[in-house]
Amino acid sequence: MKHEMKQLLEQVQSGAISVDDALLAMKMEPYEDLGFAKIDLHRRIRNGAGEVIYGAGKTVEQMIAIVHKMLSSGQDRILITRLDDEKAKGLTDAVEMTYYPEGHIGIVGGMPPKSGNGTIVVATGGTSDVPVAEEAALTAEFLGNDVIRLYDVGVAGLHRTLAHLKEIMEAEVVIAIAGMEGALASVLGGLAECPVIAVPTSVGYGASFHGVSALLSMLNSCASGVSVVNIDNGFGAAYQASLINHAGKKG
Amino acid sequence: MKHEMKQLLEQVQSGAISVDDALLAMKMEPYEDLGFAKIDLHRRIRNGAGEVIYGAGKTVEQMIAIVHKMLSSGQDRILITRLDDEKAKGLTDAVEMTYYPEGHIGIVGGMPPKSGNGTIVVATGGTSDVPVAEEAALTAEFLGNDVIRLYDVGVAGLHRTLAHLKEIMEAEVVIAIAGMEGALASVLGGLAECPVIAVPTSVGYGASFHGVSALLSMLNSCASGVSVVNIDNGFGAAYQASLINHAGKKG
Amino acid sequence: MKHEMKQLLEQVQSGAISVDDALLAMKMEPYEDLGFAKIDLHRRIRNGAGEVIYGAGKTVEQMIAIVHKMLSSGQDRILITRLDDEKAKGLTDAVEMTYYPEGHIGIVGGMPPKSGNGTIVVATGGTSDVPVAEEAALTAEFLGNDVIRLYDVGVAGLHRTLAHLKEIMEAEVVIAIAGMEGALASVLGGLAECPVIAVPTSVGYGASFHGVSALLSMLNSCASGVSVVNIDNGFGAAYQASLINHAGKKG
Amino acid sequence: MKHEMKQLLEQVQSGAISVDDALLAMKMEPYEDLGFAKIDLHRRIRNGAGEVIYGAGKTVEQMIAIVHKMLSSGQDRILITRLDDEKAKGLTDAVEMTYYPEGHIGIVGGMPPKSGNGTIVVATGGTSDVPVAEEAALTAEFLGNDVIRLYDVGVAGLHRTLAHLKEIMEAEVVIAIAGMEGALASVLGGLAECPVIAVPTSVGYGASFHGVSALLSMLNSCASGVSVVNIDNGFGAAYQASLINHAGKKG
Amino acid sequence: MKHEMKQLLEQVQSGAISVDDALLAMKMEPYEDLGFAKIDLHRRIRNGAGEVIYGAGKTVEQMIAIVHKMLSSGQDRILITRLDDEKAKGLTDAVEMTYYPEGHIGIVGGMPPKSGNGTIVVATGGTSDVPVAEEAALTAEFLGNDVIRLYDVGVAGLHRTLAHLKEIMEAEVVIAIAGMEGALASVLGGLAECPVIAVPTSVGYGASFHGVSALLSMLNSCASGVSVVNIDNGFGAAYQASLINHAGKKG
Amino acid sequence: MKHEMKQLLEQVQSGAISVDDALLAMKMEPYEDLGFAKIDLHRRIRNGAGEVIYGAGKTVEQMIAIVHKMLSSGQDRILITRLDDEKAKGLTDAVEMTYYPEGHIGIVGGMPPKSGNGTIVVATGGTSDVPVAEEAALTAEFLGNDVIRLYDVGVAGLHRTLAHLKEIMEAEVVIAIAGMEGALASVLGGLAECPVIAVPTSVGYGASFHGVSALLSMLNSCASGVSVVNIDNGFGAAYQASLINHAGKKG
Amino acid sequence: MKHEMKQLLEQVQSGAISVDDALLAMKMEPYEDLGFAKIDLHRRIRNGAGEVIYGAGKTVEQMIAIVHKMLSSGQDRILITRLDDEKAKGLTDAVEMTYYPEGHIGIVGGMPPKSGNGTIVVATGGTSDVPVAEEAALTAEFLGNDVIRLYDVGVAGLHRTLAHLKEIMEAEVVIAIAGMEGALASVLGGLAECPVIAVPTSVGYGASFHGVSALLSMLNSCASGVSVVNIDNGFGAAYQASLINHAGKKG
Amino acid sequence: MKHEMKQLLEQVQSGAISVDDALLAMKMEPYEDLGFAKIDLHRRIRNGAGEVIYGAGKTVEQMIAIVHKMLSSGQDRILITRLDDEKAKGLTDAVEMTYYPEGHIGIVGGMPPKSGNGTIVVATGGTSDVPVAEEAALTAEFLGNDVIRLYDVGVAGLHRTLAHLKEIMEAEVVIAIAGMEGALASVLGGLAECPVIAVPTSVGYGASFHGVSALLSMLNSCASGVSVVNIDNGFGAAYQASLINHAGKKG
Repeated sequence: MKHEMKQLLEQVQSGAISVDDALLAMKMEPYEDLGFAKIDLHRRIRNGAGEVIYGAGKTVEQMIAIVHKMLSSGQDRILITRLDDEKAKGLTDAVEMTYYPEGHIGIVGGMPPKSGNGTIVVATGGTSDVPVAEEAALTAEFLGNDVIRLYDVGVAGLHRTLAHLKEIMEAEVVIAIAGMEGALASVLGGLAECPVIAVPTSVGYGASFHGVSALLSMLNSCASGVSVVNIDNGFGAAYQASLINHAGKKG
Repeated sequence: MKHEMKQLLEQVQSGAISVDDALLAMKMEPYEDLGFAKIDLHRRIRNGAGEVIYGAGKTVEQMIAIVHKMLSSGQDRILITRLDDEKAKGLTDAVEMTYYPEGHIGIVGGMPPKSGNGTIVVATGGTSDVPVAEEAALTAEFLGNDVIRLYDVGVAGLHRTLAHLKEIMEAEVVIAIAGMEGALASVLGGLAECPVIAVPTSVGYGASFHGVSALLSMLNSCASGVSVVNIDNGFGAAYQASLINHAGKKG
Repeated sequence: MKHEMKQLLEQVQSGAISVDDALLAMKMEPYEDLGFAKIDLHRRIRNGAGEVIYGAGKTVEQMIAIVHKMLSSGQDRILITRLDDEKAKGLTDAVEMTYYPEGHIGIVGGMPPKSGNGTIVVATGGTSDVPVAEEAALTAEFLGNDVIRLYDVGVAGLHRTLAHLKEIMEAEVVIAIAGMEGALASVLGGLAECPVIAVPTSVGYGASFHGVSALLSMLNSCASGVSVVNIDNGFGAAYQASLINHAGKKG
Repeated sequence: MKHEMKQLLEQVQSGAISVDDALLAMKMEPYEDLGFAKIDLHRRIRNGAGEVIYGAGKTVEQMIAIVHKMLSSGQDRILITRLDDEKAKGLTDAVEMTYYPEGHIGIVGGMPPKSGNGTIVVATGGTSDVPVAEEAALTAEFLGNDVIRLYDVGVAGLHRTLAHLKEIMEAEVVIAIAGMEGALASVLGGLAECPVIAVPTSVGYGASFHGVSALLSMLNSCASGVSVVNIDNGFGAAYQASLINHAGKKG
Repeated sequence: MKHEMKQLLEQVQSGAISVDDALLAMKMEPYEDLGFAKIDLHRRIRNGAGEVIYGAGKTVEQMIAIVHKMLSSGQDRILITRLDDEKAKGLTDAVEMTYYPEGHIGIVGGMPPKSGNGTIVVATGGTSDVPVAEEAALTAEFLGNDVIRLYDVGVAGLHRTLAHLKEIMEAEVVIAIAGMEGALASVLGGLAECPVIAVPTSVGYGASFHGVSALLSMLNSCASGVSVVNIDNGFGAAYQASLINHAGKKG
Repeated sequence: MKHEMKQLLEQVQSGAISVDDALLAMKMEPYEDLGFAKIDLHRRIRNGAGEVIYGAGKTVEQMIAIVHKMLSSGQDRILITRLDDEKAKGLTDAVEMTYYPEGHIGIVGGMPPKSGNGTIVVATGGTSDVPVAEEAALTAEFLGNDVIRLYDVGVAGLHRTLAHLKEIMEAEVVIAIAGMEGALASVLGGLAECPVIAVPTSVGYGASFHGVSALLSMLNSCASGVSVVNIDNGFGAAYQASLINHAGKKG
Repeated sequence: MKHEMKQLLEQVQSGAISVDDALLAMKMEPYEDLGFAKIDLHRRIRNGAGEVIYGAGKTVEQMIAIVHKMLSSGQDRILITRLDDEKAKGLTDAVEMTYYPEGHIGIVGGMPPKSGNGTIVVATGGTSDVPVAEEAALTAEFLGNDVIRLYDVGVAGLHRTLAHLKEIMEAEVVIAIAGMEGALASVLGGLAECPVIAVPTSVGYGASFHGVSALLSMLNSCASGVSVVNIDNGFGAAYQASLINHAGKKG
Repeated sequence: MKHEMKQLLEQVQSGAISVDDALLAMKMEPYEDLGFAKIDLHRRIRNGAGEVIYGAGKTVEQMIAIVHKMLSSGQDRILITRLDDEKAKGLTDAVEMTYYPEGHIGIVGGMPPKSGNGTIVVATGGTSDVPVAEEAALTAEFLGNDVIRLYDVGVAGLHRTLAHLKEIMEAEVVIAIAGMEGALASVLGGLAECPVIAVPTSVGYGASFHGVSALLSMLNSCASGVSVVNIDNGFGAAYQASLINHAGKKG
């Protein structure tokens, strides 16, 4: 942004454009208005991986239009999250997309090569947490990361957790996904030597309050190095995990 | 109670007492009214250990009166909980009492011999949970139990927890005491082969909400065999643990 | 676990296995990975009763696969909880299972002989609490316990509660199940001489908040010897009750 | 109010007052403005008992001014609630007032004769609920009611409750006051044949949440005929109880 | 109950029954067990009006069985609450019942004559509160009360409320029913000279939280003489209102 | 109201009507009772725009009846909110109405001319907030306001917000509509020089708690000049915005 | 801001400043950094009234420094909110300031002339709400508004509210301030013809939850034209009220 | 850990130690038990920076003992958090420690050289958030990071935020600290190209609920790449930020 601003000022200086046009340009934004949504054509994800569509609440028609606009703007890869089976079917009829039903993820343009510093471990407390975990794992892969899935390693069976000590201790980032009491984040936070991103899930019943119990547990983790994202937000965890796994690569 | 009822009916049958007196007697209760509190002289704790006074909100004078009444009614041992240092001083001036400041517990008449089936493990997540743990441990000892204290064995340093695997696996009951995220209950629930009674503590800050986070975690524990008592209720946990440690001894 | 560890070390000492194989073995776990779930073939419930499958969220196909794997591993008896009528039908077509619709429980291999110290009383406040009570009662029976059902004995009709004073006072454990205001736990806690495990239910409307009101009541019970499990968690209460009813039988 | 309106209209009709004066009069209210509070000199409590001052947050000077104004307006009896010991001392120096420290109540002009249909039973679960109970009992007496105090009759010691069955069943109104789990309201609601007004108290700790647990219990009471007032609102319960105890006396 | 006890004791005294039989009889209760519900054949509502069945969660078959049992036990009038249209149809095919769809109420045996001291005003804030109001009004009529319905008199249009000042001021009891902000209870509480029972309703959206906002408003009413029942509990309000409207009629 | 009162009093004075008739008239209200709803025929919205029907929970038949009554009473324009597509179809069959499906709004009698001081900006954080925004925008237009729609200008893409700085700074009122974290209100509150009315929406998942998160954010806005309406209450925001946009036009 | 931007671009165009200096200038802000706070010297409140300091959490020394800086920057009038008596004393020793203890407000430079379209009515439900009301009233006066104070006009004494119908109906804005049940906002919202800004206060006890009950009531007001600010936020309400009272005066 | 295990197994193999000693050793942990706390002498923070003591709830004597033990075990640098001024004074009398009062931080052994990939930006919404920010900033510096402080850059004055666009966009990690509505996290999340760790603070009043409002806002941030730690947990945010700033440096 700063760069465009400087160019603009230089054009004003050189008389290439008028003051009023510059003023206008400074307000112009590189997004395209489809009426129901503004698409950010510039905001391409930093490591070159692609663009993201949040599928929930969008019709098949809207998503097809957005995908076409993105592709025609030069976008190579598109990730669509929160896609149900029916809409996925509608989309695959219209665009070349791979659908991953367990994570409710559609991917246009395939996965990129791995580009991170190391591996991202995606661990879950139980099998019911797998849909959120797959949203996280597929997002991380879409963003160019090597992912190790450790599912059903909840702390009530500690030997299952400990069986994967090596992967946990060698990871660049750990995503700890759990519902109910959410203790997995604390245990992994104590074992891992890297940042742990905790994802509470809405799995559970009664006093789990649709993920609130797990969320509070994770926020109160006595282990250092743990931070938390919204309930069921596998995408958000993977997005931040990818930033971390690509850290120190700027220059 | 059923026994007294039968006696009463037999006295009515034999004409030893009138119908009206029987009616009256059935309403009479073996407690003594001190004005500010009704003392249950019959409800002596089952394994012969003694009687309990809940010290919070009672004046020193009231407690001295209750203790004297109890002793004069033949009670040998009295446990006073939630006793602060100042009141403890006032009490020890008037009655022979040992005061345990860390657990805010006063004991009149000393500890009874051990009478349970095995040991009660009292474990805490951190050092700040120790006051609640001491309330539990001393109560359990007052009720005739062998107690093993495992303090500061929280799950963020799993090696500390696992260092005591033997004690945990050999216990008759485990009392798991933790604040913040309360994950200790789940981990101990997964390791122990006996009932685990979880005590959330009000230790923590921010989103720990004075113990609510730990309480919810413990209620949602994915480990079987875990039940929960009120926040900071070390006494209640020890009372139930003692019942369990004395189970199967009725006949 | 400690036992296997010792064996392993002795094998290393004797040269029977290499250091690396021992390291590997220590990480190997006696569970089998079916892809969607890790089955604990070792964790057979302690008193020999059998293994448990949590039916909610599993497909009929997944459950059939798990059951077959368990049976082929030598498991005699299997308890399936949270099973709806339709899935139960699907299961009974494929495996020999008795389905108890009121408790949403399926049992493979029948009930074991009674092995506890005494009886477990399962009491409910109203008729709407019966499904949770049946989950508890059937689980307790599956774990080798003698169960007495006292349904619809809520405290608003105290004579109903008192009519069963004998069963309550002779029990080894009482499971108190109630929705709405959950007062049953306190009243039974005051009457019983054994541990009382309270189960709040989501029965009620308005300010019952799907069981929260009953949960809070039970946590605040002024009766000693009461602990609480999650809302509607009949299984958890019965599991702990069974541990207590088998207490003192280790050695 | 309707009566004054009619008088006013008749005066307009007769020309005794002008239209504008009538308009003005209709807006005039029989209260006196002391600057810091508007006193309702008309709203004398219906059964002739007197007027009420809510003492919390008022200075001694303000209360003295209000009392003097009321007395000079012909008020015979004044009830002052939520009065702490220090302010009570200040007031008794200036006006003839009896102070009841347990209920934080001051009364000017003494108690009126009993005028209700029967008795109001004020029952508490424990001894810590007594301050709220005394606020209720003294208010009820101030409003001309016969009050029976049943303190420390909580449901964890059911024999204590049942010992007073006669008083409970013969009452015109029962005020059930309890903190912690608030089960007293349901038990009394099941035993009494009259309206039960439940008062949750802020007594308790941990998950009692300063009276919320008791409040929810009471709102969810499975006994018919129970209604609830705000936490610690002994005055409000007594006020409504007095209305009920004087019911059917209008004509 | 006291009466039967006395009779029993006299029979023991006279030798008419043995001690053991008396013991047994004391535990026997005059209810009949239908398996799925215990019916209280004695608890006939005090003013002779009839018995009540809570319809929610009961099948048509269960309700028919209960109704038949009640009728054959001499019950003349039965009130069935929370009855949906479909179940009502099923019931009317089997028993002579009048169904009131707006209040989801079925009545067997018709309405009794009016027997109260005066009128019960049932007022609502809006038209959406009418179903709860009809539950209250029909229940009150079933219990022998004269009912005045004042619907849609919410405080945002104060002239509507004030148009009914006469009915409000002459009532024996007012039932104030409102959702959203629940201000109706405070305004009616300020106008009425009799007890006001407030019923919060789950009407509203957003921050009304299914009746919690109205519930809190009503509990905090600054008007004296207001008590509150559970959200949407029209029956409970009417039941207590009827007790009040029949107060002073005991002797 | 004051005016009618004066007229009435003058008629009493002149003897044109009797005192009793005046009393009666003062209670008479200019609304018409349709049984299911009281219509305020006088309460025509102040700037002459029309009358409003809250469509949620009303049947098509009820709405047709209300519309016909309003039209026959001389109402020119009617706004119907919370109208779903199906009911809208039913209505358009019976009355001349334009239906705006995105805002669930139906309008009878068309839009009035613009009469406000300036423009009302309706801004949303995302595309999912558009239904609430359309309810607000159409209501504002129905009330005679010039509306500028700025949709999908959420603060995570600040350049989108800033692109509309001119419209925001020149508005008479800004309506800031956002779900999730609701930060839009603070940012617009900091940029605008006019009142900002914030509308939290129930858009989001997990810890958004159906709009509670956005609601709290908006209430805590650190920007001055921001006030808040209920979750999803687009109508309420527009109603107040219209009052503000017509401010200073009374005399 | 737009204006300065244009100037800047013109200077770049004319060569008056370099591109880099322009870039820098665009980031420069007209605030002064005192280390502990950034003062906005440009953001002078629009109608010329002055600048505001939020006193809570600032030391006397910090406030004196800020005041001196503001005065030396040409600010004539300064409003300091949330000022306790002790700090006020410290300030008045150092700067010429009038302190209003009831509203915890200090004003430097005196009140400006009235400049609004009409009057702002500040109404409270009780006398305990007066401190919040005074914060609102004094702020409004500081911002150049004519204020009418209507204190203690709560809805439980409706005649008190109605006695001020004229002031309410003639106001340009009404600020409705109430704790407990917060019904005042709905009643005033129904009576007033102008925007009503509701301020919940933390006055009350028990289930008032420090203002949450009043806050929810106000958000759910069934009266149109009501919006809400944070609990106890008298300043915020007055700030927006002043914007509204000065509306339509831009051009 | 894996390494020590292998060594141990090799010693068993070689006969250097017995099986029982190995078993024992495996349970031995490199921490030292001071009675009131177990010190982890091995868990030295990874980048060599030092060890941390959580000062809240520890006495001066306990902290001195821990510091001495750590120093004598070879620890060079110690960070003490949540240290109040009085305890800090006590500590500095006994050990060589620098105390930073604004962050309530004490540091023994001084700051290490900078070792991260880039800068950590610590930004706050207001001046009241500075104590939390200083806890974060000093922790980050103690862990070897270059820190840029941007205080009082809240979104209600967007120009203040944008004035630091360069620092924000060039950071390796941003720590966004804000109370009240917490919008800062979303705005920085939209501007930054690196992970943003959000810290809600308990700053605010009323509906800020001691940080809950900010916490919910941050969890619901619509900006990708934002995760959240507990309320006021500046240390936790800095700890994770340091891990991220040192990422990719393992090998």
